[in-house]
Amino acid sequence: MYRSKHCESMPGKIADTKLAAKGRLSHEWALRRMGIIEKIRSKNEREQPLAGLRLGICLHITKETSVLAMAAKSLGAEIAICSANPLSAQDDIAAFLYEQGMHVYAWRGETKAQYQQCIQSVLAFKPAIVTDDGGDLHAAAHCQQKARNIIVGGTEETTSGVKRLAALQAAGKLLYPVIAVNNARTKYLFDNRHGTGQSTLDGILRATDMLLAGKNVVVCGYGWVGKGVASRARGMGATVTVTEVDPVRAIEAKMDGFAVSRLSDAAPAGDVFITCTGQTGVIRKEHFLKMKDGAVLANAGHFDVEIDTGALYATARPTQVRPNVERFIVNGKRLFLLSKGRVVNLVAAEGHPPEVMALSFANQLLSILHVAKNHDKMERKVHSVPEKIDEQVARYALGAMGIKIDEMTKEQRHYQASSS
Amino acid sequence: MYRSKHCESMPGKIADTKLAAKGRLSHEWALRRMGIIEKIRSKNEREQPLAGLRLGICLHITKETSVLAMAAKSLGAEIAICSANPLSAQDDIAAFLYEQGMHVYAWRGETKAQYQQCIQSVLAFKPAIVTDDGGDLHAAAHCQQKARNIIVGGTEETTSGVKRLAALQAAGKLLYPVIAVNNARTKYLFDNRHGTGQSTLDGILRATDMLLAGKNVVVCGYGWVGKGVASRARGMGATVTVTEVDPVRAIEAKMDGFAVSRLSDAAPAGDVFITCTGQTGVIRKEHFLKMKDGAVLANAGHFDVEIDTGALYATARPTQVRPNVERFIVNGKRLFLLSKGRVVNLVAAEGHPPEVMALSFANQLLSILHVAKNHDKMERKVHSVPEKIDEQVARYALGAMGIKIDEMTKEQRHYQASSS
Amino acid sequence: MYRSKHCESMPGKIADTKLAAKGRLSHEWALRRMGIIEKIRSKNEREQPLAGLRLGICLHITKETSVLAMAAKSLGAEIAICSANPLSAQDDIAAFLYEQGMHVYAWRGETKAQYQQCIQSVLAFKPAIVTDDGGDLHAAAHCQQKARNIIVGGTEETTSGVKRLAALQAAGKLLYPVIAVNNARTKYLFDNRHGTGQSTLDGILRATDMLLAGKNVVVCGYGWVGKGVASRARGMGATVTVTEVDPVRAIEAKMDGFAVSRLSDAAPAGDVFITCTGQTGVIRKEHFLKMKDGAVLANAGHFDVEIDTGALYATARPTQVRPNVERFIVNGKRLFLLSKGRVVNLVAAEGHPPEVMALSFANQLLSILHVAKNHDKMERKVHSVPEKIDEQVARYALGAMGIKIDEMTKEQRHYQASSS
Amino acid sequence: MYRSKHCESMPGKIADTKLAAKGRLSHEWALRRMGIIEKIRSKNEREQPLAGLRLGICLHITKETSVLAMAAKSLGAEIAICSANPLSAQDDIAAFLYEQGMHVYAWRGETKAQYQQCIQSVLAFKPAIVTDDGGDLHAAAHCQQKARNIIVGGTEETTSGVKRLAALQAAGKLLYPVIAVNNARTKYLFDNRHGTGQSTLDGILRATDMLLAGKNVVVCGYGWVGKGVASRARGMGATVTVTEVDPVRAIEAKMDGFAVSRLSDAAPAGDVFITCTGQTGVIRKEHFLKMKDGAVLANAGHFDVEIDTGALYATARPTQVRPNVERFIVNGKRLFLLSKGRVVNLVAAEGHPPEVMALSFANQLLSILHVAKNHDKMERKVHSVPEKIDEQVARYALGAMGIKIDEMTKEQRHYQASSS
Repeated sequence: MYRSKHCESMPGKIADTKLAAKGRLSHEWALRRMGIIEKIRSKNEREQPLAGLRLGICLHITKETSVLAMAAKSLGAEIAICSANPLSAQDDIAAFLYEQGMHVYAWRGETKAQYQQCIQSVLAFKPAIVTDDGGDLHAAAHCQQKARNIIVGGTEETTSGVKRLAALQAAGKLLYPVIAVNNARTKYLFDNRHGTGQSTLDGILRATDMLLAGKNVVVCGYGWVGKGVASRARGMGATVTVTEVDPVRAIEAKMDGFAVSRLSDAAPAGDVFITCTGQTGVIRKEHFLKMKDGAVLANAGHFDVEIDTGALYATARPTQVRPNVERFIVNGKRLFLLSKGRVVNLVAAEGHPPEVMALSFANQLLSILHVAKNHDKMERKVHSVPEKIDEQVARYALGAMGIKIDEMTKEQRHYQASSS
Repeated sequence: MYRSKHCESMPGKIADTKLAAKGRLSHEWALRRMGIIEKIRSKNEREQPLAGLRLGICLHITKETSVLAMAAKSLGAEIAICSANPLSAQDDIAAFLYEQGMHVYAWRGETKAQYQQCIQSVLAFKPAIVTDDGGDLHAAAHCQQKARNIIVGGTEETTSGVKRLAALQAAGKLLYPVIAVNNARTKYLFDNRHGTGQSTLDGILRATDMLLAGKNVVVCGYGWVGKGVASRARGMGATVTVTEVDPVRAIEAKMDGFAVSRLSDAAPAGDVFITCTGQTGVIRKEHFLKMKDGAVLANAGHFDVEIDTGALYATARPTQVRPNVERFIVNGKRLFLLSKGRVVNLVAAEGHPPEVMALSFANQLLSILHVAKNHDKMERKVHSVPEKIDEQVARYALGAMGIKIDEMTKEQRHYQASSS
Repeated sequence: MYRSKHCESMPGKIADTKLAAKGRLSHEWALRRMGIIEKIRSKNEREQPLAGLRLGICLHITKETSVLAMAAKSLGAEIAICSANPLSAQDDIAAFLYEQGMHVYAWRGETKAQYQQCIQSVLAFKPAIVTDDGGDLHAAAHCQQKARNIIVGGTEETTSGVKRLAALQAAGKLLYPVIAVNNARTKYLFDNRHGTGQSTLDGILRATDMLLAGKNVVVCGYGWVGKGVASRARGMGATVTVTEVDPVRAIEAKMDGFAVSRLSDAAPAGDVFITCTGQTGVIRKEHFLKMKDGAVLANAGHFDVEIDTGALYATARPTQVRPNVERFIVNGKRLFLLSKGRVVNLVAAEGHPPEVMALSFANQLLSILHVAKNHDKMERKVHSVPEKIDEQVARYALGAMGIKIDEMTKEQRHYQASSS
Repeated sequence: MYRSKHCESMPGKIADTKLAAKGRLSHEWALRRMGIIEKIRSKNEREQPLAGLRLGICLHITKETSVLAMAAKSLGAEIAICSANPLSAQDDIAAFLYEQGMHVYAWRGETKAQYQQCIQSVLAFKPAIVTDDGGDLHAAAHCQQKARNIIVGGTEETTSGVKRLAALQAAGKLLYPVIAVNNARTKYLFDNRHGTGQSTLDGILRATDMLLAGKNVVVCGYGWVGKGVASRARGMGATVTVTEVDPVRAIEAKMDGFAVSRLSDAAPAGDVFITCTGQTGVIRKEHFLKMKDGAVLANAGHFDVEIDTGALYATARPTQVRPNVERFIVNGKRLFLLSKGRVVNLVAAEGHPPEVMALSFANQLLSILHVAKNHDKMERKVHSVPEKIDEQVARYALGAMGIKIDEMTKEQRHYQASSS
């Protein structure tokens, strides 16, 4: 493990400072595709709204996160950062951020103890605002007596983190106001449908090199992810069948032009099966047994529970036939499981494209600015992203895309007000 | 005006009883396309849950309404019915319903006074449940002392009707519980997007006989109606540009693959302009002046305020060149206004197809059954359609479409419960 | 039958001169949508390339034909015109053309004898060039000794007309050169796919008022018409299954994302069946028997042989339930036949939109100009539309659509020449 | 360089025999996706139609080629094989084929001299039939006196190879009949549109990780490749503009719903530019200068001449920012060139998916069988793939996809015969 030479002046712990140059290129690539963040940064740079503010960040250390962190730094923040997952840090990005003068405590392959230690190091930095993904940093902050007096507010990226904070709030123990970024329209309308939609197919193509045109693709679940995946699969020339347990979504899928059936009825003809449900045990042994020779199984959901891989591994010993592709012989027929049933867009491709993370992190950045400015007026509870911020993100996004839209006329504002 | 021969035994006032045979064919055609209503009817027929119940209906007298009314009758209801609009009644349907033994007070071209009188006639029938579209029947009921003691509950089809009832509720004056059908998922997810989406293009094609492939279609507004119209226009081969005032919707449109711009930028290249905003003064003189020779203007919104026809009529005297098509010479260029800027799917085509009304009226019918059974347990307020009814409608709809879907396993129910 | 008042100066026979004003509006509407013809006309008007030339026309007397005829007139031609079918003439258009000084011999509902007489009247006009649709005028011309000396060339719109001319050519009896308009790229690439594709759905919607979203549409045949219909049906939200006898086309359909199966397998689930094959007996009794209650049958092909209506009429007596919709009870289930199995876009809607006819008639007009100029250099045979004309039509069409495209650079011309 | 241990019994020259196991997995993966080849093989295996026949193959040594070669071997052929390009051989596949007993002369990174030597080694094997891709093997065979007496026929995969053979034929020097596989319908209808269409986007995604939804994609050229790329880009949510020099194709693109413009007009708004023209100098300095910051440039055409990379390299020194992505600063704006302007689907992804190669190689295999059986009856000229083979490939493909289609009835065969 590398320990910074500059550690007298610049604390931190990363894998290798020499990776900084590579990290910079990766950062710049993401920066280019995240014009919204750049817009927010450049618009606020002069004012330095985060000047002198200490910001503690616990996010996945990716090229997209580096764009958020560098923007906050550019607006005046002093930053300590650790990874939201022991396995997800990209060492070149960590090195780049460290080179840029942040306190970075992150490397790929931390032990659980090291992971907790990194979080503690961030808290030891005495951040006034904490930005988290999953709630571990918030939880650790609530275990420290001293955090009470230092932290003035925070933000949280995920639903699961928000749940933990809501529980604290319900118990009357929440120490500072937190903005839940997840429920901004500019996040949930685009993230899963467009981000996961594209990257799931991307992962399947990288893993299998198969032609999608002419294939029978079965999409399990027609929420935002399923809608995105089904639409993209059709866009690539596949014939798509949707399965659902919710009858309203089933009609939605049918009226969007997809075939809709029970999974057991779709199993025999399917070439590719993609789970997008957030549920457990969606594709089960009874379905494997009906599938045809050569069927491909992929999961787009967060957890690896949607395809019953246990049943699969119990049935047969797999052979690795390509990276991220295992072959099982079930009932004399070959089934191909991608990325061990783990989320295929992250394992076999690069996860959400930066353009989608830009929308999410723009909400983060503006929420951080909002907390910095308004924390003393904010209740100690979980707040939604202010509508104004959500709209602002959308306007910046349009700007980054070079799109101009209409403004309501006075007459229209009046008409709207009078009719609602 | 014809007055029923059977008026001793069967009160009512319609245009011409001889139209009943034609009305029956039209009714049967709609019945065929509204399998959901038939499913509900046949499932409940034996029990006769409306036996002896007096039902007062104020809806547009269309073939679809006849299917709802006949189903209610078949479940035991005695029915008096009038039209929700002085101009919308179809006389053949009125004659058919009259022939079937309902008290019908409706004909095309009622005066305002006659329209109110018809409503009074329905109230004079002493209905226990009232089903309304727009709130005129509810309003009239609230003006009568005696209604208090007779009416036990109601349903309301539209948002504007719900607003009036909500005002009564807020003032503590609502006399009976009312179910607002409009906010059922099985209504709002399909009605505007698929119903208006298709029928708006249908209206434009009937009016103009133009080729949509290769045309630049400009869709103003990207709510449900705009989403439906834009998607269908693309489906017919048009190149679609969307205009919006809401930046989030603008990004949605762009990520759905449409060009997005200000209307003034889209005006010069557009071949067809379709307003779907619910706003006033969307296409204005400044836009007319930029349009190219031959541009076509159509409105898909409820009111005829979206295209500023006043400015158009002020500029130029129109020539009727085809049914529902007026030509204006503006700035030396020919502009074609469809159906005087009124909602083009109703004026130039047949409005929502029966399959879409089936979803809406299935909610109506089940809500009527719900009120009939539970009125004494229901608060005097505006109720949402119970989720169970919404789901039931979806299941019936799937049944009518011949679609079977999966059921959650025990394990999945448990997983869902534990993770939410 | 009306006989022109001007018949001393202006011969002709039409239904009613008073219809001319209505015909003019219809003509102007088509003119507006056929900008290509107008471009050709205005570009050549000064030169008057048809000055003094007598042109005999035998085409369907529609608003689109009036645009072609008026353009030829405007370029100097003197015109006699009759209808290419005893039943297809629109009397208002005939009146308008007559009013404009053409010799018109056409009315709706000619007897066969009258039809032939009209053709003879056109020949009696001593045309130098003859433009035909189907070959009846050419055939009649070849029966007259005198035609030899008068007619210098002709054009033919249809494949079936070309076949007759090819037979004459093979027998060494063709009297003059003829250009076959049908095989121009600007005709066959757009005509069936886009023209029939849209108007077939238009016809089905006008006849049935059904919602296409969520319907199972079965398209029989995947030639140009089938490709167009399938694509448009999907564009309206239908789930489309294609049936074919040609295995290559079947793969094309599958790779375009459609389900592909045998008709007997698709029959039980289909909501709408559309024949696009040019074949006979495609949907037969064995298929009717498998269909579900409520299935709709429509034909997009030229002849009414694709749906075995004979078998249908033999099975059951139909009831007319809406204009162009007959109901049959087969095997206890209701089947709905549209427009008696005749081509649904012409019977229930308005046939090809003017924009598509514009491409075809632009080839006609330029071919007429070509014959007028080059007839003495042309062999007495059936000629293809010169490539230059085809490209010219495309360029005019782009112009009419306001589209500018790139030109090859010198370097590119050289590269292309050297590599081919 | 490894030289086979078995070289007494088994001649050949490959990189490393130890790669055979890896090659086998890759072979099996392709085999699975090329069910057509397997169908042909299993149907003919018993007859051993190539028993004792010596087959010389010069193709790219890929997993797909291994499937073709193994099928030929399984039908009795003895095989010598070399690579059709000094750089394209996959060493693991070469090792696998060598292990299977073929004479393999191929490794990645041959010098030109070695490349020619490999071809000579294949000829030294004295093949009776030669299968080539590009014509180098055919050319070498024609330089040898002895080839005359040994080779009885051949096949050729590419257009450029066919041109060379046609020149030999024209000069009266063609020594044996050759079947040109390229013009089979089952090749050209699917290869470029679906194979290149998908894999071009795949290459762009792997290179850039960009979100396509909401992007302005400019597709230069609307032949089969351009049609495929444009359709897939739209399918991924992009707004697509097409540029063309052929006016008919330009209208096709517009009527398919794409925006169409000159490249110089599309340049300022484009996010991604993809050349699909087969032309030289399509995107030039004048276009680079108009592009916006961040534009991405990719080529889908065979040669690296479509983007004027010379002008780009002359303007600016590139920085490699990701694998296959070079950044240029032009006019102060960043432009990103993918895979140095070389064909992006091969360089950044895996080229045509196996399913598409299956169609092409099925024509190869059946053509080899055809030559083996009929060579003495075949003229010494370039032959098209017999229609029967083309149809047979289509039927096998349908079989492999599990699709059944209709057969013409007797009546239909008669109708077709009589009407054509």
